[in-house]
Amino acid sequence: MRVLILGGDGYLGWPTAMRFSARGHEVSVVDNFSRRRWHERHDTDSLTPIRPLDERLAAWQELSGNEIRSYVGAIEDPEFLEQAILETRPESVVHYGEQPSAPFSMANREQAVETQYTNVIGTLNLLFFLRDHAPDSHLVKLGTMGEYGTPNIDIEEGFIEIEHKGRKDMLPFPKMPGSLYHLSKVHDSHNIHFACRVWGLRSTDLNQGVVYGIETDETAQDDRLCTRFDYDEWFGTVLNRFCVQAVIGHPLTVYGKGGQTRGFLNIRDTLQCVELAASNPAELGEFRVFNQFTEQFSIAELADLVKRSAAELGYEVSVHNYPNPRIEAERHYYNAANTKLIDLGLRPHYLGEELVRSMLRIIERHKDRVIERAILPRTRWRPGELEGAVTRSSKSDSEHIAE
Amino acid sequence: MRVLILGGDGYLGWPTAMRFSARGHEVSVVDNFSRRRWHERHDTDSLTPIRPLDERLAAWQELSGNEIRSYVGAIEDPEFLEQAILETRPESVVHYGEQPSAPFSMANREQAVETQYTNVIGTLNLLFFLRDHAPDSHLVKLGTMGEYGTPNIDIEEGFIEIEHKGRKDMLPFPKMPGSLYHLSKVHDSHNIHFACRVWGLRSTDLNQGVVYGIETDETAQDDRLCTRFDYDEWFGTVLNRFCVQAVIGHPLTVYGKGGQTRGFLNIRDTLQCVELAASNPAELGEFRVFNQFTEQFSIAELADLVKRSAAELGYEVSVHNYPNPRIEAERHYYNAANTKLIDLGLRPHYLGEELVRSMLRIIERHKDRVIERAILPRTRWRPGELEGAVTRSSKSDSEHIAE
Repeated sequence: MRVLILGGDGYLGWPTAMRFSARGHEVSVVDNFSRRRWHERHDTDSLTPIRPLDERLAAWQELSGNEIRSYVGAIEDPEFLEQAILETRPESVVHYGEQPSAPFSMANREQAVETQYTNVIGTLNLLFFLRDHAPDSHLVKLGTMGEYGTPNIDIEEGFIEIEHKGRKDMLPFPKMPGSLYHLSKVHDSHNIHFACRVWGLRSTDLNQGVVYGIETDETAQDDRLCTRFDYDEWFGTVLNRFCVQAVIGHPLTVYGKGGQTRGFLNIRDTLQCVELAASNPAELGEFRVFNQFTEQFSIAELADLVKRSAAELGYEVSVHNYPNPRIEAERHYYNAANTKLIDLGLRPHYLGEELVRSMLRIIERHKDRVIERAILPRTRWRPGELEGAVTRSSKSDSEHIAE
Repeated sequence: MRVLILGGDGYLGWPTAMRFSARGHEVSVVDNFSRRRWHERHDTDSLTPIRPLDERLAAWQELSGNEIRSYVGAIEDPEFLEQAILETRPESVVHYGEQPSAPFSMANREQAVETQYTNVIGTLNLLFFLRDHAPDSHLVKLGTMGEYGTPNIDIEEGFIEIEHKGRKDMLPFPKMPGSLYHLSKVHDSHNIHFACRVWGLRSTDLNQGVVYGIETDETAQDDRLCTRFDYDEWFGTVLNRFCVQAVIGHPLTVYGKGGQTRGFLNIRDTLQCVELAASNPAELGEFRVFNQFTEQFSIAELADLVKRSAAELGYEVSVHNYPNPRIEAERHYYNAANTKLIDLGLRPHYLGEELVRSMLRIIERHKDRVIERAILPRTRWRPGELEGAVTRSSKSDSEHIAE
């Protein structure tokens, strides 16, 4: 299968590229290195010392014997993207090529616009070029569970049957996302759904939970193949961040009460899910949504798990409740469906103390690289707001809190 | 009240500006004349001979004694927009400043990107500047009934209470829009809702039906004050288009079977609705949605109404069913709520033969200006598709057709 991976230099994109290549597929990656540039701009960096893409590709070829081709450029650049589609004629496109951070999108107007421009216009370009040059290609798009927000009803996989005043329809699940980044993914989902309905394209929207983990089978083969690992307030996801904090003796940064509940999954399961989606493509004209997570946890539960796991390695970890920089319910109902990928054969790697300790051990090797200044949350959803003070009225805090 | 009207040179923006000015409000308009430029690019024009904005403003001042200030620039340009917000310190912002045509957005990739960029990024800029410089201002945003599509359940005003597996929540009404233009409005709605929830802004999203009509109290006062009137395949809305076709002896261009049902309203009622929304602002933190139309008609019913009305003026009108250039259900359930504006005091101007004849009489005066080449629909939702032939599978045609 010819597979094109957008964002193939990233945390998930790079391991995904190696996985498909290891399975014998013909893999090409697209990246413009924006993630590396955003880190430079913010004076932060990956915990793991990642190699430039061309060194990664050379090391992979040396170890596996397989070539991965690379296209360096932005999907917002139509001439570049069109050429990449024409040259690779992909049967599957795995689309990670977006700005992935909620706080990054909330920091200021410029970054909000950059996020929605990169994500929405980049994906719109892609849809047109698939329509014109690869209409049978299957678009595997990374969305996020954050598109749904925290409604007071069970979250279904993309669509919900609504019965209303004696009539019924199966309609897109209503979206209440929590940041301008999450909104960009909602916009993408609507645009892709339309392209499937109207142009007969085919797509699987993977509404992914929060990913944790450092290693996959391929990254573990050689230090030169390791993937990036972010722990800063912008790009670090919560469990990865907590593990770094535990190792360097920083209090775990729980935002607010820590009752926020989300879906989570191991990076190894991200690769499994993407592979399952690509190997079992949607039908032409079909827009399919899978909720891609394996377990639900509250933030407080994760902090407790890290504290317990680290204790056995001799770390004394404290947990601190910081004023929540985000606007989100800190206690709410949360129950999301995630059976579709299981039905396709997903075998989850569940989270436990042993897994956390294996992460802590890898982090220990790189602890000298940690930039501590980058850890505390400084990007506030309501700028200028002081600790605990709510300066403007809003219905958002309470209206979706259920028992 | 200080009112800032974005898109104040347009079909609805210009009459709205005069209406607020006539009522004694302090009015400023923003426009970058993109609508005039798009017509030049396409070699089309308004049926009515409209004056340049500065002549309009001078004529209005001469007749009313009231000054309307103008800011010429694009809302996508952050420096320009920020300056306009800072100088006008608006209490109400009426936002018509978007690319408003579905076929324009479907013609090619460039125009699709232009549409989503102008609309989504322009509105995103606006939300940031309102947050930073005018957080109490009430944003009256023009959306469209087309955001909902044609679901098989009743369409509510923005939100719907969903009962699911024994739990309940009031959530955004699911959206299934029918073009990349309509999608841009869906994206706007999600972004604005977020800004209200998280930043405590206040907004009324007016999901407007299809507008018809040429005259308002103010435009009728002097030829120099007339508003634009489009009848071309891109910018002409259906009833306006049919009336021009009747006068010049062109068959009425019904797309497909003509069973497509939509909400409609008179341009005079657009002004009433916007005024009612602005005079009864949303609360801080509130995102309010009104469905802004007064009556529902099918396209076939409108064609029949124009045919009958024109007959009394001596026109023999033929109705032709053209292959539908759009992908849409041609026979479907449609029942949308529209009580909120009525509750605020809207007194509708209903559509009838006399109103159509008054439109026909005004069109007669300008019939020599009609560019007939611009009438037939040439922009296809599925490019390259021949008459009646469906080249790719899609579920869209049948899945939302109800009895």
